[in-house]
Amino acid sequence: MTDLPKSIFILEEGPREGFQIEKGPISTARKVELIDALSDTGLKQIQIVSFVDPRRVPGMADAEDVVRAITPRPGVAYTGLWLNERGFERAVATGRLTVRGSITLGASDAFLKRNQNRTIAEQIASQRALAQRYVELGVPVTRGSVMAAFGCNYEGDVSAAKIVGLIAEILDIADSVGARLDHVSLADTMAWATPRSIKTIIGAVRERWPDLDLALHLHDTRGLGIANAYAGLEMGVARFDAAVAGLGGCPFAGNAGAAGNVCTEDLVFLCDEIGIDTGVDLESLMACARLAEDIVGHPLPGSVMKGGSLRAMRERIAAKG
Amino acid sequence: MTDLPKSIFILEEGPREGFQIEKGPISTARKVELIDALSDTGLKQIQIVSFVDPRRVPGMADAEDVVRAITPRPGVAYTGLWLNERGFERAVATGRLTVRGSITLGASDAFLKRNQNRTIAEQIASQRALAQRYVELGVPVTRGSVMAAFGCNYEGDVSAAKIVGLIAEILDIADSVGARLDHVSLADTMAWATPRSIKTIIGAVRERWPDLDLALHLHDTRGLGIANAYAGLEMGVARFDAAVAGLGGCPFAGNAGAAGNVCTEDLVFLCDEIGIDTGVDLESLMACARLAEDIVGHPLPGSVMKGGSLRAMRERIAAKG
Repeated sequence: MTDLPKSIFILEEGPREGFQIEKGPISTARKVELIDALSDTGLKQIQIVSFVDPRRVPGMADAEDVVRAITPRPGVAYTGLWLNERGFERAVATGRLTVRGSITLGASDAFLKRNQNRTIAEQIASQRALAQRYVELGVPVTRGSVMAAFGCNYEGDVSAAKIVGLIAEILDIADSVGARLDHVSLADTMAWATPRSIKTIIGAVRERWPDLDLALHLHDTRGLGIANAYAGLEMGVARFDAAVAGLGGCPFAGNAGAAGNVCTEDLVFLCDEIGIDTGVDLESLMACARLAEDIVGHPLPGSVMKGGSLRAMRERIAAKG
Repeated sequence: MTDLPKSIFILEEGPREGFQIEKGPISTARKVELIDALSDTGLKQIQIVSFVDPRRVPGMADAEDVVRAITPRPGVAYTGLWLNERGFERAVATGRLTVRGSITLGASDAFLKRNQNRTIAEQIASQRALAQRYVELGVPVTRGSVMAAFGCNYEGDVSAAKIVGLIAEILDIADSVGARLDHVSLADTMAWATPRSIKTIIGAVRERWPDLDLALHLHDTRGLGIANAYAGLEMGVARFDAAVAGLGGCPFAGNAGAAGNVCTEDLVFLCDEIGIDTGVDLESLMACARLAEDIVGHPLPGSVMKGGSLRAMRERIAAKG
């Protein structure tokens, strides 16, 4: 376990992932309540909204209202997601978000063709133009991202060589516009990752770029989320996207246990127990997870909020002495 | 990952774990339906009932009826659980179960005192007497077991030295009655295990007895079940107890996602994907998991039965070709 990082950085995506997928209308006030509670846990970055077409994602129609109503905590970066220029402009217009550009490529040609009717070559060209535009606007381009990095429902398994090639493209785009990326994220968009593919693909990337910081964006759809995170930690990965309570999981009652994003407090619990600093207070975060369940009105996939932390157990035992 | 075993043996405990904890009455016929379905998946051992006081565990009042009604499949061992001589006699009397003795010690003095009003020394003496009696009756004593091997709600964390000491006692008892154990099981009875404690404790046991076969009995109460199993696999552990669909999980609706035993089909999925043979057909087992949900009438914690296997995805992609 010698490669375990001493500390990790967590990008909390629960508010954006969760409120985007929930069917029931959730009031702006309750969204803000969760975001403000998350701000007090020690998290350093929270993705709170997405700027997307309200006709397609009604749950995000109040994105600007949410951004306006939160109480920003110093030291916490609040970010949003956008998929096009209109969304980007909305994010900038709020004046309250940390706005950063990213360079995103998809690992799967089939998925790209299906969703955007584009080839990878066309996607590379468009990402280069986008990065150029960010730089011209003075928006730092800090994140590279590979979607479907471990497999795809339309194309199947993804080779390590392909991921290495896509990262080379991302770094080349960054270089060409004079951007300096903080890290490159590998997103398991369709939950194909396993501890083996995590180790194989990250191993190959590490071999090529030993000093490149990597992030993992994991889903728990098939029950391997935390095991995959652990495999990533064993490979020294020190950045993770996660969602409090596993928000973003399948919301309908008959499938209440079906998870979406890897659960933040379960990840923090794992790290606490294996000696990795997250900067996050687990008990406060578990309270946020229970608040999230209360807000959405149905059980969410997170486990430790139900089972309880071991630190609390140890304290109870010590108190009884 | 060089220590990963080539294959593992799974003891399926779902029927016993699950039907024991469920509140609603479940008919004998439906229990038998699940057991018979599990018999066709490739599992080699299924613990199907417990012989306990029906006043305390009403869900197991029909244990003999269940044993009588199943259709045993050649090559599958059907076992039961008992906690005292009366239960043992009931198991033998069925004439249809594989009856094996085990030597069980608890790692926690506090838990022992609380539950059985016994010291560890008294427990050792009683287990020695019990093992002696099994041998006299011609019942093979094949399994050693340490309960609460990774931590305890009454005593806290458990040291590797303590586990090594208890295994030494178990092996001494086995020697003294001339029994030859197949393996020693480390049970995470109260869900305290983490990948770190798994590696630390198994590492210490391995150092003392490099050739001793170990089993892991894991719970998923705090979301680390599969990550712990993976850590065990990395340490070369090749025997696991598990429960189909995560049966045994907390059954009340408000906590439908709270898991008990580590889920068999999620473990099989992990093994399939990292190249470890389980002998179990994942799709058949996932069908059993869905059957289990139908029988208990509420969602169960298993994930891959909801998310779908990757093999099925690959076949679908190949068929579209």
